[in-house]
Amino acid sequence: MQIIPVIISGGAGTRLWPVSREAFPKPLLKLADGESLLQKTFKRATLFEDVPEVVVVTNRETFFLTRDECQEVNEDRIPLGFVLEPFGRNTAGAVASAACWVKQHHGEDAVMLVLPADHLIEDLEQFQSAVNAAAAAAAEGRIVTFGIRPTAPETGYGYIEFDTKRGLDGVHPVVRFVEKPKLDVAEALVAGGSHLWNSGMFCFSVKTILKEFNHFTPDLLRACEGSFAAGAVSTADCCRALELEAAHFKRVTDISIDYAIMEKSDRVSVVPSNMGWSDIGSWHSISELTPPDAQGNRIYGDALLHGVSNCYIKSDDRVVGAVGVDNLIIVDTPDALLVANRDCTQDVRHIVGQLKQNGHDSYKIHKTAHRPWGTYTVLEESDRFKIKRIVVKPGAQLSLQMHHHRSEHWIVVSGTANVVNGEQIISLQPNQSTYIPAGHKHRLINPGVMDLVLIEVQCGEYLGEDDIVRFADSYGRVV
Amino acid sequence: MQIIPVIISGGAGTRLWPVSREAFPKPLLKLADGESLLQKTFKRATLFEDVPEVVVVTNRETFFLTRDECQEVNEDRIPLGFVLEPFGRNTAGAVASAACWVKQHHGEDAVMLVLPADHLIEDLEQFQSAVNAAAAAAAEGRIVTFGIRPTAPETGYGYIEFDTKRGLDGVHPVVRFVEKPKLDVAEALVAGGSHLWNSGMFCFSVKTILKEFNHFTPDLLRACEGSFAAGAVSTADCCRALELEAAHFKRVTDISIDYAIMEKSDRVSVVPSNMGWSDIGSWHSISELTPPDAQGNRIYGDALLHGVSNCYIKSDDRVVGAVGVDNLIIVDTPDALLVANRDCTQDVRHIVGQLKQNGHDSYKIHKTAHRPWGTYTVLEESDRFKIKRIVVKPGAQLSLQMHHHRSEHWIVVSGTANVVNGEQIISLQPNQSTYIPAGHKHRLINPGVMDLVLIEVQCGEYLGEDDIVRFADSYGRVV
Repeated sequence: MQIIPVIISGGAGTRLWPVSREAFPKPLLKLADGESLLQKTFKRATLFEDVPEVVVVTNRETFFLTRDECQEVNEDRIPLGFVLEPFGRNTAGAVASAACWVKQHHGEDAVMLVLPADHLIEDLEQFQSAVNAAAAAAAEGRIVTFGIRPTAPETGYGYIEFDTKRGLDGVHPVVRFVEKPKLDVAEALVAGGSHLWNSGMFCFSVKTILKEFNHFTPDLLRACEGSFAAGAVSTADCCRALELEAAHFKRVTDISIDYAIMEKSDRVSVVPSNMGWSDIGSWHSISELTPPDAQGNRIYGDALLHGVSNCYIKSDDRVVGAVGVDNLIIVDTPDALLVANRDCTQDVRHIVGQLKQNGHDSYKIHKTAHRPWGTYTVLEESDRFKIKRIVVKPGAQLSLQMHHHRSEHWIVVSGTANVVNGEQIISLQPNQSTYIPAGHKHRLINPGVMDLVLIEVQCGEYLGEDDIVRFADSYGRVV
Repeated sequence: MQIIPVIISGGAGTRLWPVSREAFPKPLLKLADGESLLQKTFKRATLFEDVPEVVVVTNRETFFLTRDECQEVNEDRIPLGFVLEPFGRNTAGAVASAACWVKQHHGEDAVMLVLPADHLIEDLEQFQSAVNAAAAAAAEGRIVTFGIRPTAPETGYGYIEFDTKRGLDGVHPVVRFVEKPKLDVAEALVAGGSHLWNSGMFCFSVKTILKEFNHFTPDLLRACEGSFAAGAVSTADCCRALELEAAHFKRVTDISIDYAIMEKSDRVSVVPSNMGWSDIGSWHSISELTPPDAQGNRIYGDALLHGVSNCYIKSDDRVVGAVGVDNLIIVDTPDALLVANRDCTQDVRHIVGQLKQNGHDSYKIHKTAHRPWGTYTVLEESDRFKIKRIVVKPGAQLSLQMHHHRSEHWIVVSGTANVVNGEQIISLQPNQSTYIPAGHKHRLINPGVMDLVLIEVQCGEYLGEDDIVRFADSYGRVV
């Protein structure tokens, strides 16, 4: 039968700072094998026989990056639909908006499979058979959750109590939902055998879920419908996108789908499974993904150790020397460093809170910023100059733009650039340069089939990113 | 009376990696007050009434940096003499070479005060009175050591046993030298009251020390004299320098002055003192220099803490988040990071050993390299391009040079540059640029009174620092 996967890709993932940030959220985090959590979710979502479209709900700001990540692993060229939120509003709003999309494009009887983009699942066969069982029940009007048979008394997960006696084709009625328990309670739940971890994945038909939204949170549904109806539609690169309209969306209640529907509806079932599910919630859980060496260490990057045990060290560029330490998480990024006790990685969120409070950019953005046309990385910044490495993807171009306050020196170091500079159009090869005076309209184009890499030295009295006037843009960014 | 301070400024200071490195050794390390250990030593060395010259023994490679550091605090414009070693050869060779210098310029009766450049002394009055007592005895033919009354059973220091009964004007005969002891031995030594820490500072006349060198290590003295006689003399910027000749210097035995002379000579005395001396040997001892906050933390730079105690965190540029950790040393530099247990900071040297073995540059050089004309910092490096920030001091100029394999794009971002580019001479202001093709002779000059800051983008198939042909140089670097 047809399944429409709906991937919910959001959340700043503050516990995974400094790698995960607002502008580069948790689902984009690359694991040791080079794939991001989002890509793994996408591949899992498209395992089924009949998937007419994958719908992704994400923030407007991360659209291009999210789309590129999906396309990278979309080998069967399955059509992609993007529902873009102007800001985060918890899972109920995301699911209701996605339901509007699926209803419009696939009809009321379509079965949605809701998958958070930041989970990891080891046993894909078990996952598939659980989804198939759930989809069959969903088509019959059930709201199906996925319950994971617990392997430990986890206090970080919610639990689902299910009716072990009544069940059909692997689908059981839910007795009740249990909030994240204390350790002794969790131990009792796990020992009892009738409680499962609540995975946060769901399966239901559009008709069923809209009926329940209408019943339990009619205002939320109205707000989502209004936002959807007033949204801006665009189509590019074999995917279509809808930007939810902000004024309506602002009225969406900040509530999870669990609170809004699951804990109230009497249509809720659960499929118990051993699919090897985990919620990548902290550096501790990331560090657990790979086997340690004989000293209990897990090292990614250039690290030298002396008397070090049970540490997770991840460094992109720099050499890390560690001496006489145990049980640490060390995560090094170009502009921020985390050193944490492995047993306290849940508290990393407090650092992000402090950064935010101090107005520090590193809670939000990385030194490398992603744009629809490629990336730029700030190499050095001072009062009067800023140096960027700009990478433009093959065939991509920046907007036709102008800056009031800064001039730019461009030096091509790899690939070919076509440059519109005032009235001139020139082509630059590696080791060639040009100068864009303040006030000149200009545009940077990569006409080639390999990445264009360019060093930009900006000079001026004001170097903020907001000093930009866009005259034309391939990505709809002209206001 | 006249005193000639001889500052021994050497050693890679491997236990203070990543701040201290071969090309930026421990004496150059800046403390919290902005002064380097070398500068503090220089100021201390010039407290005396009659100091006709300060002699500094250091490596040829660090000459300019060492000289600039001294000049910065040389308020009385005391003449400076530099004895430059082609490579390190322990303290006996350094002292014997310095003795040759002092003999030549100040005569056999001159009194030398030998001070390692990486010590810290809190009580300068006690220091002065100890030196005055020592100098008087030195003039009478004694070899005087400085013994520090121990405040703890340190196992990292050698001890001097002195004759507590016999002593004149604060100068006592030495009974014996004791190697770095085990803890129980150290405790007994400290309890006994007749043992002092061996500070590694000395005072003697040229005549006396040369006589002892001649007696105990005549070959070493011959090698130093030969190296001195064949050395190259230069004078610039109100200081004179002698580069010891390498072929002779190679024959200098690698032995400390303690082994070579102190433990053997019967002319050795000691001045006991409470001058508040410490040997800045490790990050632990550096961290002890400033009082901690209420949680026992000492923070330099941008750090955010959650549940952190007894940590020393030093970061130049990046934000550091620390969570749930205790008793750590975290030292962050642009290209290398150290995370160490505070109780294991002696072991940091093992990291440097590994780096050296792996051929990793970060044991030796920093991202910012010091040159006689200023500094350059590598901002980004790849196969085909390299970006540097170049800072040229007022009035300084680089050599007239040429590169076979790389072209250079120069963009002035602050100050004024005069540029010799092939046959052209041009002047560049901020936001102006020029291009130096491979094979062109060129020179960069700062004619102004403020620093010139320039961004250089190098392009080429080979970007090694050794692709340079020098035609003329203000600093004698033309081969």
